[in-house]
Amino acid sequence: MGLVHLQTFRVRYAETDQMGALSSPRALEWFEFGRTEWLRAADLPYSRMETEGLFLPVVEANCRYLRRVRFDDPIILRTRLSQAGRASLRFDYEAVLDGVPDHPQVLLGWTLHAFVDANGQLMRPPAETRCQLRPLVSPDPAS
Amino acid sequence: MGLVHLQTFRVRYAETDQMGALSSPRALEWFEFGRTEWLRAADLPYSRMETEGLFLPVVEANCRYLRRVRFDDPIILRTRLSQAGRASLRFDYEAVLDGVPDHPQVLLGWTLHAFVDANGQLMRPPAETRCQLRPLVSPDPAS
Amino acid sequence: MGLVHLQTFRVRYAETDQMGALSSPRALEWFEFGRTEWLRAADLPYSRMETEGLFLPVVEANCRYLRRVRFDDPIILRTRLSQAGRASLRFDYEAVLDGVPDHPQVLLGWTLHAFVDANGQLMRPPAETRCQLRPLVSPDPAS
Amino acid sequence: MGLVHLQTFRVRYAETDQMGALSSPRALEWFEFGRTEWLRAADLPYSRMETEGLFLPVVEANCRYLRRVRFDDPIILRTRLSQAGRASLRFDYEAVLDGVPDHPQVLLGWTLHAFVDANGQLMRPPAETRCQLRPLVSPDPAS
Repeated sequence: MGLVHLQTFRVRYAETDQMGALSSPRALEWFEFGRTEWLRAADLPYSRMETEGLFLPVVEANCRYLRRVRFDDPIILRTRLSQAGRASLRFDYEAVLDGVPDHPQVLLGWTLHAFVDANGQLMRPPAETRCQLRPLVSPDPAS
Repeated sequence: MGLVHLQTFRVRYAETDQMGALSSPRALEWFEFGRTEWLRAADLPYSRMETEGLFLPVVEANCRYLRRVRFDDPIILRTRLSQAGRASLRFDYEAVLDGVPDHPQVLLGWTLHAFVDANGQLMRPPAETRCQLRPLVSPDPAS
Repeated sequence: MGLVHLQTFRVRYAETDQMGALSSPRALEWFEFGRTEWLRAADLPYSRMETEGLFLPVVEANCRYLRRVRFDDPIILRTRLSQAGRASLRFDYEAVLDGVPDHPQVLLGWTLHAFVDANGQLMRPPAETRCQLRPLVSPDPAS
Repeated sequence: MGLVHLQTFRVRYAETDQMGALSSPRALEWFEFGRTEWLRAADLPYSRMETEGLFLPVVEANCRYLRRVRFDDPIILRTRLSQAGRASLRFDYEAVLDGVPDHPQVLLGWTLHAFVDANGQLMRPPAETRCQLRPLVSPDPAS
């Protein structure tokens, strides 16, 4: 139940730092990429939401870095909507290493979002948006 | 007690996104900048630590976005070492808006770090490093 | 003749700035991504080159921004090796908008690279690397 | 003659890549930072220009990477307005290494800009803006 979106990509060179692994801030760019694709898969493309005056800024973000991710590593990013409140959403993310047995976890994170209008004022999304989102919630990683 | 480092800077244009405010991943770059300067102020410049084989990758990061930060806004970033374990450190960050009364908070965050060697293996830092860090811990925002 | 690599992707939200289009520095990240994939297609994956002690830093970069690229726009990036000198390479890049008639150009650019060793000293690549690269040169956009 | 703005800063960790030096796209972020500060010094803060409906997107950018720049290196960035056309500007940039004798050059670059309105249409800036800019042009590095 719920919608879990899988996105595959490789670690770009510009995403590394001199420690020879993923630069930690870039993980949040991956999460943003993951939820963009989740929203598209949910038939709620974010570019259309913004055109219609609905914005989803990040209110809080969290990321655990479980294992080094290196340049060119193939990644599978699993994105799910874990909570859908009246005027907020929470997305959960799990990045695993592709191309090796057992797909070890490399990142676990979540972001909390508020619905706001173009002026940054909190607002409730239209009823149909909420209707569309509700059945897609996947509260549990295993679900 | 403890060492709280203050860093002032302005929001760069490249740090915004089309929502017209700070792109959320960039907050983690600020935190990295803040702890670089904290370590320099503590006479433990990170560039020297890496030369000596001691690395401080991020194990977990958290950020709350309390208020929109816009291009060119003057920021004061307060960085403190909130915990110093045997082989780990935790830094806390508070970014406030400069140039307006009461300096409203815009970001609150923390990062957890492990000491590792060049191969990414956990290690304890040298005793003198721990001695240097211990009195600089500032567990409480008010301290 | 020559090898022209095509890479398709969408503009990520983090790649925009408050002007509502691609942040100009990000174009150079795309070029880096394009040549990573070109080298893989040429059976010279860059991750392996670095492991073998051969590095390709950018010596000069140029980019023309011909048309606004917006968040979520589908992009086709064409990368070709336009010159292969004794110890240098030049790549040329053309990004066009996908999903619209005639695929209008959005970016045109090039990067010049030197072969260096791990210490940053200029070096000639192994003879077999040069042999592998020579037939893949595509000096002319139309070729 | 003309206005040359000097900006000093250190290379941030997030600005490196696994080659252990400045990631090449970040140079264009520095140039953006340099011209933001140049415009402020010219009493034409870019944040105000955008508020008044005048935008300065990059039309072309060029950068030569003359010498490795490493994490924490102190940098002096010299920005000057090298051309001011009817509806375009060109800025030139020179980054040198601080804290060592003779301040060796590390980057040389330029960006070309068009004045556009909020819809991206070319426009001439107000006469007073052009009057303000003209005496600040510094066509020659030595001037």
